[in-house]
Amino acid sequence: MASTSETRCNPALRRGAGIAAAVLLALLAGQAGADTPPRKGRTMAEVLAASKPSDWRRLDPDNSVYLDFAAGRVIIELAPQYAPQHVANIRTLLRQHYFDGLAILRVHDNYVVQWGDPESGDKDKAKPFGEARRSLPGEFSQAIAKQPFVALPDGDVYAPQVGWSGGFPAARDEKAGRTWLAHCYGMVGAGRDNAADSGNGSELYVVLGHSPRHLDRNVTLVGRVVQGMELLSALPRGGGALGFYDKPEQRIPLKTVRLGSELPPDERSKLELLRTDTDTFTALVETRRNRTDDWYLQPAGKVEVCNVPLPVRLP
Amino acid sequence: MASTSETRCNPALRRGAGIAAAVLLALLAGQAGADTPPRKGRTMAEVLAASKPSDWRRLDPDNSVYLDFAAGRVIIELAPQYAPQHVANIRTLLRQHYFDGLAILRVHDNYVVQWGDPESGDKDKAKPFGEARRSLPGEFSQAIAKQPFVALPDGDVYAPQVGWSGGFPAARDEKAGRTWLAHCYGMVGAGRDNAADSGNGSELYVVLGHSPRHLDRNVTLVGRVVQGMELLSALPRGGGALGFYDKPEQRIPLKTVRLGSELPPDERSKLELLRTDTDTFTALVETRRNRTDDWYLQPAGKVEVCNVPLPVRLP
Repeated sequence: MASTSETRCNPALRRGAGIAAAVLLALLAGQAGADTPPRKGRTMAEVLAASKPSDWRRLDPDNSVYLDFAAGRVIIELAPQYAPQHVANIRTLLRQHYFDGLAILRVHDNYVVQWGDPESGDKDKAKPFGEARRSLPGEFSQAIAKQPFVALPDGDVYAPQVGWSGGFPAARDEKAGRTWLAHCYGMVGAGRDNAADSGNGSELYVVLGHSPRHLDRNVTLVGRVVQGMELLSALPRGGGALGFYDKPEQRIPLKTVRLGSELPPDERSKLELLRTDTDTFTALVETRRNRTDDWYLQPAGKVEVCNVPLPVRLP
Repeated sequence: MASTSETRCNPALRRGAGIAAAVLLALLAGQAGADTPPRKGRTMAEVLAASKPSDWRRLDPDNSVYLDFAAGRVIIELAPQYAPQHVANIRTLLRQHYFDGLAILRVHDNYVVQWGDPESGDKDKAKPFGEARRSLPGEFSQAIAKQPFVALPDGDVYAPQVGWSGGFPAARDEKAGRTWLAHCYGMVGAGRDNAADSGNGSELYVVLGHSPRHLDRNVTLVGRVVQGMELLSALPRGGGALGFYDKPEQRIPLKTVRLGSELPPDERSKLELLRTDTDTFTALVETRRNRTDDWYLQPAGKVEVCNVPLPVRLP
């Protein structure tokens, strides 16, 4: 069943009606009665219910990160096509169990949650990178030619074009011949200092709150949270500058952080992700541009790229 | 001191550099040394540090809601200019202490937190509205002529024009002669059922996550959280459909919810909010469009209306 984060069928409803309407939608998805007037378009639930197996793809074990901490498990899909060097380095760090015992250091409301080595600033105490590279060139954008792209018709404030590439929200500048990932909710990036090559994937952040699109092309995005985002977004916000936890005891320890391919096959998630290069996905985008749920009185007719859910499901 | 939610000077920094850079910015705000090369523009911190008292306004006790619950206090500024009937009805409910003992019923990740009467669907158990009206016409937009407006140069995906009105993010359609508030992070709205007039301000929701702009003009926005947003955004997400807490024991009780003018004057917050109709605010928007912090390698040159912070401070 598709996760609740994308079943935003009836927002801001009064509670009794909310439940009833959700049930109603489920019924309508199954059976259109003879008395039901034809509606202009489908709902997202209907599009998903009608999807074919080929509309979905499995998580690649080599491109999935399983982050376990007290609250539960977060699963991240990596985007090697947009950040090949960072993803390779993160895989190296993961195989060395580098992140085990590190911590969530920062939860900045309406911005990011960030984890890494609390001692990263201390030469003697910092956890060694081992085989991993200490620094990487910023991978802020890629050449257009290499990347598949499905455009959103509605444009964007920040970029000439937006849409999706391989399951990730992305932007493009055809004149410049460049494409980059977009900082939508749940996207994962690699922290860096002022120098463009000062990050290496050992400090990662996840976007929570309104999409900070001003970060696009300034920092390397490496992937997206596909499960467990609600565990990160519900963390207490840090009271220090920039949302850092100012007392060491506030930091939230990471238990184990593993690459999917390091887990025994029967322990890997069977999560499926909706492909973004199919007619079904195009239909889904259309349901977000034009809401047909009875609750809507004035469907927007457009949608922002970060306002289109990227559904996942467990078979 | 301006709250951390708007001091997003150095995002996604590696931890050690983050603290150092924040200190550096504070120093630069105070003193530009002879050796410092002139920078192209100011930072938001500098703009705020140079603001005049007249750039700020006090919270109006008649337009402020003080919501107290176990985690602390949330303060909401009401927007009567955009929702006169809803705000009047909410004041009536507040004076009757209607919300006391009700609960947070729903926390839907990347969408809304919502509170109201758990028994609202039950005629016998629902809390009486007393003097308040049972239903109100939807106040989804207002005539343009009545509302001051400061436009953002960068446009918007959803509306012909966006900007700010009286301290709130807003949108306009000059051809249609209408203006409405925008569903940015922290905005507060009145839940309703399918009928346009089925809400009355007794169930309220707050936007968390990416701005759900598709809700604009479909539901009445009544104000904005100006303090304590981090207490709402850190709540555990509901496991039921649409993020509702499916077990009654999960609901989070509201202690007292008061209109500011019902509190003794010395208990009212001294919070000040940055006005949105001044040169200082225009300068602040400019700092968000073009980031001059050294960390930025490619300032966006544009900004989304929901990506401009609306600073508050305690004198």
